Amino acid sequence: MTDTWNTAITEIAPNSVRVRGYDIAELMGHVSFGAAVYLILRGELPDAATGRLMDAIVVSSIDHGQTPPSVLAARTVASTGATLSASVAAGIMSINRHHGGAIENCARQLGQIIEKAEKDPEKLDAAATAFLAELKARTQRMSGFGHRIHTADPRTARLFALAQEAGATGLHVQAARAVERCFEASGKKLPINVDGAIGAILADLGFAPEVMNGLFMIARVPGLVAHVAEEQARMKPMRRVVPGKAIYDGPEARKLPDTV
Amino acid sequence: MTDTWNTAITEIAPNSVRVRGYDIAELMGHVSFGAAVYLILRGELPDAATGRLMDAIVVSSIDHGQTPPSVLAARTVASTGATLSASVAAGIMSINRHHGGAIENCARQLGQIIEKAEKDPEKLDAAATAFLAELKARTQRMSGFGHRIHTADPRTARLFALAQEAGATGLHVQAARAVERCFEASGKKLPINVDGAIGAILADLGFAPEVMNGLFMIARVPGLVAHVAEEQARMKPMRRVVPGKAIYDGPEARKLPDTV
Amino acid sequence: MTDTWNTAITEIAPNSVRVRGYDIAELMGHVSFGAAVYLILRGELPDAATGRLMDAIVVSSIDHGQTPPSVLAARTVASTGATLSASVAAGIMSINRHHGGAIENCARQLGQIIEKAEKDPEKLDAAATAFLAELKARTQRMSGFGHRIHTADPRTARLFALAQEAGATGLHVQAARAVERCFEASGKKLPINVDGAIGAILADLGFAPEVMNGLFMIARVPGLVAHVAEEQARMKPMRRVVPGKAIYDGPEARKLPDTV
Amino acid sequence: MTDTWNTAITEIAPNSVRVRGYDIAELMGHVSFGAAVYLILRGELPDAATGRLMDAIVVSSIDHGQTPPSVLAARTVASTGATLSASVAAGIMSINRHHGGAIENCARQLGQIIEKAEKDPEKLDAAATAFLAELKARTQRMSGFGHRIHTADPRTARLFALAQEAGATGLHVQAARAVERCFEASGKKLPINVDGAIGAILADLGFAPEVMNGLFMIARVPGLVAHVAEEQARMKPMRRVVPGKAIYDGPEARKLPDTV
Repeated sequence: MTDTWNTAITEIAPNSVRVRGYDIAELMGHVSFGAAVYLILRGELPDAATGRLMDAIVVSSIDHGQTPPSVLAARTVASTGATLSASVAAGIMSINRHHGGAIENCARQLGQIIEKAEKDPEKLDAAATAFLAELKARTQRMSGFGHRIHTADPRTARLFALAQEAGATGLHVQAARAVERCFEASGKKLPINVDGAIGAILADLGFAPEVMNGLFMIARVPGLVAHVAEEQARMKPMRRVVPGKAIYDGPEARKLPDTV
Repeated sequence: MTDTWNTAITEIAPNSVRVRGYDIAELMGHVSFGAAVYLILRGELPDAATGRLMDAIVVSSIDHGQTPPSVLAARTVASTGATLSASVAAGIMSINRHHGGAIENCARQLGQIIEKAEKDPEKLDAAATAFLAELKARTQRMSGFGHRIHTADPRTARLFALAQEAGATGLHVQAARAVERCFEASGKKLPINVDGAIGAILADLGFAPEVMNGLFMIARVPGLVAHVAEEQARMKPMRRVVPGKAIYDGPEARKLPDTV
Repeated sequence: MTDTWNTAITEIAPNSVRVRGYDIAELMGHVSFGAAVYLILRGELPDAATGRLMDAIVVSSIDHGQTPPSVLAARTVASTGATLSASVAAGIMSINRHHGGAIENCARQLGQIIEKAEKDPEKLDAAATAFLAELKARTQRMSGFGHRIHTADPRTARLFALAQEAGATGLHVQAARAVERCFEASGKKLPINVDGAIGAILADLGFAPEVMNGLFMIARVPGLVAHVAEEQARMKPMRRVVPGKAIYDGPEARKLPDTV
Repeated sequence: MTDTWNTAITEIAPNSVRVRGYDIAELMGHVSFGAAVYLILRGELPDAATGRLMDAIVVSSIDHGQTPPSVLAARTVASTGATLSASVAAGIMSINRHHGGAIENCARQLGQIIEKAEKDPEKLDAAATAFLAELKARTQRMSGFGHRIHTADPRTARLFALAQEAGATGLHVQAARAVERCFEASGKKLPINVDGAIGAILADLGFAPEVMNGLFMIARVPGLVAHVAEEQARMKPMRRVVPGKAIYDGPEARKLPDTV
């Protein structure tokens, strides 16, 4: 039995680190982190507009306050005196089917609608209607539509606008629109949410559904680090981390400076 | 006992997600992920050059092939049939004092040299000499200098050039240079490595040492996701993940396209 | 929305801790850990023979040296300077479908054979033959039979003997024997292994398949703690944890003292 | 560089698994899990009374209802759809300095009192008084005394009684009594709690402080498995796991049957 194995991600040699063939030192300063994420997961560099879109996608999910279980788990673990890395890891472990998973699920479901429509944009509305009826018959739900808190999430509109700019609105985004129309026709106000929008756009960019949760992890780690650092700095050990009881006391609402 | 608690990171309201006061929908498309990371950890937006520097810092650490324990742990866990999130979490848990920790340790040690020099750039060489002698007497090591594999890491030079551009080379970077001169004077070739460079630059940017490992986690998650996805796609479950036995079979070395 | 929720495991009151109704202070000294594990997972105390069987089951899986991925992951994480709890957690995270999971899978498959035999012991051989043929047609494998290293695992014989004593050899154990006969008839030497034996016995004891991996975690934590403690005490940080390269240098083979 | 390494825990050979020299198949049915835990961590089998004491120690910490952060973290992670092993791992990661850590801290502090008394039982009261005064001067606390919920924890009395039987009440247990007397003399009712009792007894049994948290992990995993299994069976995904809001609805208080 040989113990060698192969990897196609990064080549290490003395004084050289190449990701998918590109020297990291050359990438630094020339591509954004979003573009580098695209490169490492897809194997090729994105064009400039897609790179910007990637940054927007990960920025959109950088944090959602104290409400998600990933933050509650990370803070609960941190409250026991755990290290930063163990606490953040507990947050990452919380990103699963029911938390972040709507991105992947929605992408898969939109893919099934596209298949049902035989990839013909004209047939997407009929396919969406049939697909939703089937889901209902199996008492299943469409992922990525509707939200506990947000009814008109500004992140969603922004994502679609940036995807449009990048030419990344293909059949999945169109299928998502078809689903929205279908819900509306049946009297339900269930707009696509930020997870659904990310799932549709990533699918149109060609990402495989099984790495989409990975993009959510990449996006959310800075939020988790910030929450754990805040827990360690501001809170007493072993406090009860009560969900829904956090009061925001950070900077007031402010506009982006023109210089950004 | 009241169960309310405070957080200053993100404010959630219906149809509004504000990070440190800024609407995420406004940040999307206007700031890179590196700039958003700076914002969420520091509380303020960076200027444009610092934003670019932040992207370069996280790009520089996005992956280091199959050599680090974080990748070996993540792949070993993945080989048991674990989920993507559990496998990535095992990688994150491996970022500690001895892995990634040189960033924080080096920043702290440079801070001690600066203190010893009473913040006077003229006194940094003498302070570094004295500090290294003290370390030696305690049989301790200076963190962030020298590397198992790289003797002239191109990432380091690139980081310092970008830090220069961003005006982010303050006392910590100068102290690092003093340490290099000091090693050279004593006949040792121990140049600052990429971890040391990041530690010096982050300290000059004003980051607290205790969140620096967090920046390394943020940077490395895409690499971990890529390795776990590759393990799941290419390898058999329960294989032996033998360190040092991976052979790179990805794209050959290539130049960045001009269009990036 | 009310925030209260229910739990039927342990009742805490001032100066009282009751597990499934029994005062822990009364359990202490009167029941073994194996019996307490049965109680907390099943809700009732086992009889004395079943309690002893439970101890034997968890003792049988307390460690398997340096070969399993759980130990390699735990040691790899420990080598980075992680805490004991984070390192042990990385080991636990490695207990999944492909590692330890044969216990649960085998129990489920034996359950399907029993169903096929309409719970009639006379029909188990025919049902096993049919079931294995179906598996083969789907290119699937029977879990819990055969072993990489052990061809006649003494733990297995011991488990069945203790199960016999405890009167815990019901249909699942009989179905396992039917599978062995079926393999033998087709010229394959694939005896039931320790995981398969545990799965069959736990199923006959009435454990649900979905908690069986939990029993393996309970059993293996002492081994993980011992390995992490040894790693921290004997090894250098950041060493390569190479699978298959460990040399045993502990006490030589010895007999149990009569006094035990 | 050689890649071989040593381990003194378990020797694996075809059809043989030996823990610290003893064949696991022989241990099964002859020693309880508590005795096997002692063996794997200490290298030698305990005598029968110490084996029973070990079982009592791990039984005493098998669960503490829904109050500890380890359970809250495990349930929060489970609520996202995580696997059993990832959820239990999140619980394990919560066992740290502030949760379970009193066992180790108390053992260390009692060790310091014993040193101050020059191992002379006659001098323990004076040493305890001096030590507590020093702690107070440094605004530090004695670990393992007093409890949020329990003022006269029946588990503590039971542990000391069983330790007495096993002849395991040496200087650490005596030092703990000296600390209690000292608190009482100064008008404080701060009896030793279950963690302090375990720390004192384990230290008298010769366990190193750095593995004591490991014993707490070993003890608590069955509780974590039971809580995660209950969460998966009874609760909706993504529910808010609110600390302090659980209502016990399990079996009513009941006496141990005589047959146990």
